[in-house]
Amino acid sequence: MTIEPNNEAMAATGEAKQSTNILRARRLGIDTQFEAIVFMRNDCPVCLSEGFSAQTRIRVSYKDQSVIATLFQTAPDLLEHGEIGLSEAAWHRLGVQAGENVSVCHPRPLESLSKLRSKIYGRPLEADAVSSIFQDIVAGRYSDIHLASFITACSARPLDHSEMVAFTGAMIDAGDRLQWERYPVVDKHCVGGLPGNRTSPIIVAIVTACGLTMPKTSSRAITSPAGTADTMETLAPVDLDLAAMRRVVEKEGGCIAWGGAVRLSPADDTLIRVERALDLDSEGQLVASVLSKKIAAGSTHVILDLPVGPTAKVRSQSAAHALSRDLIAVALAFDVEARTVISDGRQPIGRGIGPALEARDVLSVLQGAAEAPRDLRDKSIALAGHLLELGGTIDLGSGVELAEQTLNDGSAWKKFQGICGAQGGMRTPPKALHCHPVFAKETGKVTAIDNRRLAKVAKLAGAPGAKAAGLEIHARIGAAVDVGEPLYTIHAEAPGELDYSLEYVQENNDIFELTEL
Amino acid sequence: MTIEPNNEAMAATGEAKQSTNILRARRLGIDTQFEAIVFMRNDCPVCLSEGFSAQTRIRVSYKDQSVIATLFQTAPDLLEHGEIGLSEAAWHRLGVQAGENVSVCHPRPLESLSKLRSKIYGRPLEADAVSSIFQDIVAGRYSDIHLASFITACSARPLDHSEMVAFTGAMIDAGDRLQWERYPVVDKHCVGGLPGNRTSPIIVAIVTACGLTMPKTSSRAITSPAGTADTMETLAPVDLDLAAMRRVVEKEGGCIAWGGAVRLSPADDTLIRVERALDLDSEGQLVASVLSKKIAAGSTHVILDLPVGPTAKVRSQSAAHALSRDLIAVALAFDVEARTVISDGRQPIGRGIGPALEARDVLSVLQGAAEAPRDLRDKSIALAGHLLELGGTIDLGSGVELAEQTLNDGSAWKKFQGICGAQGGMRTPPKALHCHPVFAKETGKVTAIDNRRLAKVAKLAGAPGAKAAGLEIHARIGAAVDVGEPLYTIHAEAPGELDYSLEYVQENNDIFELTEL
Repeated sequence: MTIEPNNEAMAATGEAKQSTNILRARRLGIDTQFEAIVFMRNDCPVCLSEGFSAQTRIRVSYKDQSVIATLFQTAPDLLEHGEIGLSEAAWHRLGVQAGENVSVCHPRPLESLSKLRSKIYGRPLEADAVSSIFQDIVAGRYSDIHLASFITACSARPLDHSEMVAFTGAMIDAGDRLQWERYPVVDKHCVGGLPGNRTSPIIVAIVTACGLTMPKTSSRAITSPAGTADTMETLAPVDLDLAAMRRVVEKEGGCIAWGGAVRLSPADDTLIRVERALDLDSEGQLVASVLSKKIAAGSTHVILDLPVGPTAKVRSQSAAHALSRDLIAVALAFDVEARTVISDGRQPIGRGIGPALEARDVLSVLQGAAEAPRDLRDKSIALAGHLLELGGTIDLGSGVELAEQTLNDGSAWKKFQGICGAQGGMRTPPKALHCHPVFAKETGKVTAIDNRRLAKVAKLAGAPGAKAAGLEIHARIGAAVDVGEPLYTIHAEAPGELDYSLEYVQENNDIFELTEL
Repeated sequence: MTIEPNNEAMAATGEAKQSTNILRARRLGIDTQFEAIVFMRNDCPVCLSEGFSAQTRIRVSYKDQSVIATLFQTAPDLLEHGEIGLSEAAWHRLGVQAGENVSVCHPRPLESLSKLRSKIYGRPLEADAVSSIFQDIVAGRYSDIHLASFITACSARPLDHSEMVAFTGAMIDAGDRLQWERYPVVDKHCVGGLPGNRTSPIIVAIVTACGLTMPKTSSRAITSPAGTADTMETLAPVDLDLAAMRRVVEKEGGCIAWGGAVRLSPADDTLIRVERALDLDSEGQLVASVLSKKIAAGSTHVILDLPVGPTAKVRSQSAAHALSRDLIAVALAFDVEARTVISDGRQPIGRGIGPALEARDVLSVLQGAAEAPRDLRDKSIALAGHLLELGGTIDLGSGVELAEQTLNDGSAWKKFQGICGAQGGMRTPPKALHCHPVFAKETGKVTAIDNRRLAKVAKLAGAPGAKAAGLEIHARIGAAVDVGEPLYTIHAEAPGELDYSLEYVQENNDIFELTEL
């Protein structure tokens, strides 16, 4: 994991000697997620001559590809003489075939680390320094140690406006950037933390039905019970490449696709993984993360939903206002018009949590069903109304009315069916076989709901991997419930997962806070 | 590598379910240095039921031992059903035998990470917070991501005096602490970065010959061409356990042993590894690192040598003075009297660089040989003189005179032989078979020597692994040299290593800076 600070010249000699440091590549089938790991025998002559030991960072090259990897050393029985074992991440990044030769050497020193050190000691980063750091990150040259240091530095020394702009720009430049032959191109993003908040499919349907362009790329869940892509996948194919996305958008004015096929702001995924391990949220990083993805996707006008609540990502009104100001200002620096909406983040939105259960909520709102969750419908209308005004097709103040009308007259539902068809055909979300209600232990009024622990119940029940898994909420904040009345119902595809979530519920019977009436 | 921030309850249920998460331990013979890594099949039912995926941090338990490890997942052919593969670090820390059962579960959340986050956001750490952080570090509960964040936070938010005291205390408490039935117990430490600076064996001989107690524990080289333990090992056994150390000290008043057999401030080794990868030196960490080792070793009076030079660890006089103040003040908080000596760090001390070559310098000084390097002799006398005064056996100002006399009358040399004998018998340092001089490319005066790159030449020649390897310096700063005159001679045990260092020298022919006379 270490990079020797004094490696400058060993790198130079290493590269000169590269031709002698040849080893046969062997795929070991070891999944290390993003981390490139290579394995060499502890008696390998290359290790001895180059001074490689366990945890040395080394550069492995194959044809014109190279990857910086962490070295682990093995007992002689795991590898043949002259072999180097590669983890899946290293194998795929190099694109090597079994038995082909790769060369190894010391990596060049990372110039950008000196910029990182400057930041740690309090000097703001110039744009070119930010750019060089992100180039190294995207190329996989930063180890987890470097990434953690970078993220910590940006929390300990908060980013100023110029730095946020530079971060956003560098993160855009590090990936693909979509261009649309249309204007405006609108988008919507929620600054996370709220289960069930599945407004995007509804908003896309409404605003594209009104003639706006909204090519929505969405993510799969990382820590939550469902991402928009997971939910949408129970309704239609979402795994579209860029050409397919273009066809759908050309035909319908919008799409709801998984963003994984296009490399939008790939540095973000790397940083998020380490941020999560540290449970650190730097506001500047958050701004750059959100905006870089939207701008790279070609958006010109964006609505940003900031749910505020004690168990949401943004905890206070003042934090939301500060974040809002930065988001709008940084977006402006990229000629993107952003509007923020500070919303109620005290409890989940809609009834379902989990891919299929959320999809059912989406369908019921679009179909105007009597049982459609009111809060999801209202929030979707409000955000769609903002987008319609921001997109400039109608007068300020009349967006909500138009959005509601588009929903009521069935044109949003028709448009949604059109989009699903263009994406490959509409599907019916699956239903879970195993359901179990969780009852109120006492009579009282619901005064708080813990979003995080409720999301965990849904995840333990199998969401998002098991599409039908998750839960359905029956009581909301303000509701009076009797003892023995169901608060929510857990849905699972397998009995083991149901048991597992129930076990957790038993130890966490205060996810719904009840106070005496 | 990630620790899910919301793992509280999964940990709880995980531990409850522990009995079902049983796997057979298999030693894979994979050396990952300090890092505990475990391997499980990607189709392992335990992974599926616990939600473990690659890079998840998991807790592995065997009898009353447990270790937090990072999980890698393997293709089915690498492990049998029901097996878990362990890296060497994980294997040794658990103390498990092949085929025995271990249990796995989610680790408890690390409470101390919230203290770390507070520090990042600018709140100084209280003593109990520091203590909980170091307990987690020493128990191996921090991943590299957490360690890097901690080190970065302590650089971005420099430690104040109270924090330095708390760090030092926590680092002492995290390891063993030696007690001596004598007073005073003196010691000496150099704040690194200077090759060849091997004064310790000479100082121990002088001050113990004068009746002081100096149980010197020293380290092996990590990045340098030789540590005191490496050098001393060419003269006598150094691998003494605590009982052996006590016997030697009882008999001779002092020893020069490798500190690895006693666990003095073990957190320091963990932090140093990550600090090196980041090339970050926080002054507060440095103070705690140096003093915790000395205090844990039972020292009551300490001389600290701070070499200053452009390629030494301390780069300026002002930095040395600031460091000096902190060292003295923090030592005082532990009732330890420290004296600092700011010395010339512009070039190596002595003639040899590398274990055996430095040992020869030590011997020639102790034996009063005519060719003994003057600078090593003078510096050893000066530091020994300070220690004699600090130890309180003589009047202030007369230490240097006594030290010189002890060296001149042969009593230091006699004492040194006694110590070597007590440690297991005196040895003769080996000589290298392959020597090659490096010549001045032009006529001029030596105006600077790059310590770091010179150390690299010695390391490429094989030091410290090859005991006889390294180099011998012939010209010092201020010397006039003619073109073709040797500047230094490389010593190597193998022709390959000689070539390797010469290759580096060819690309770095400005390690000695020559200016026209």
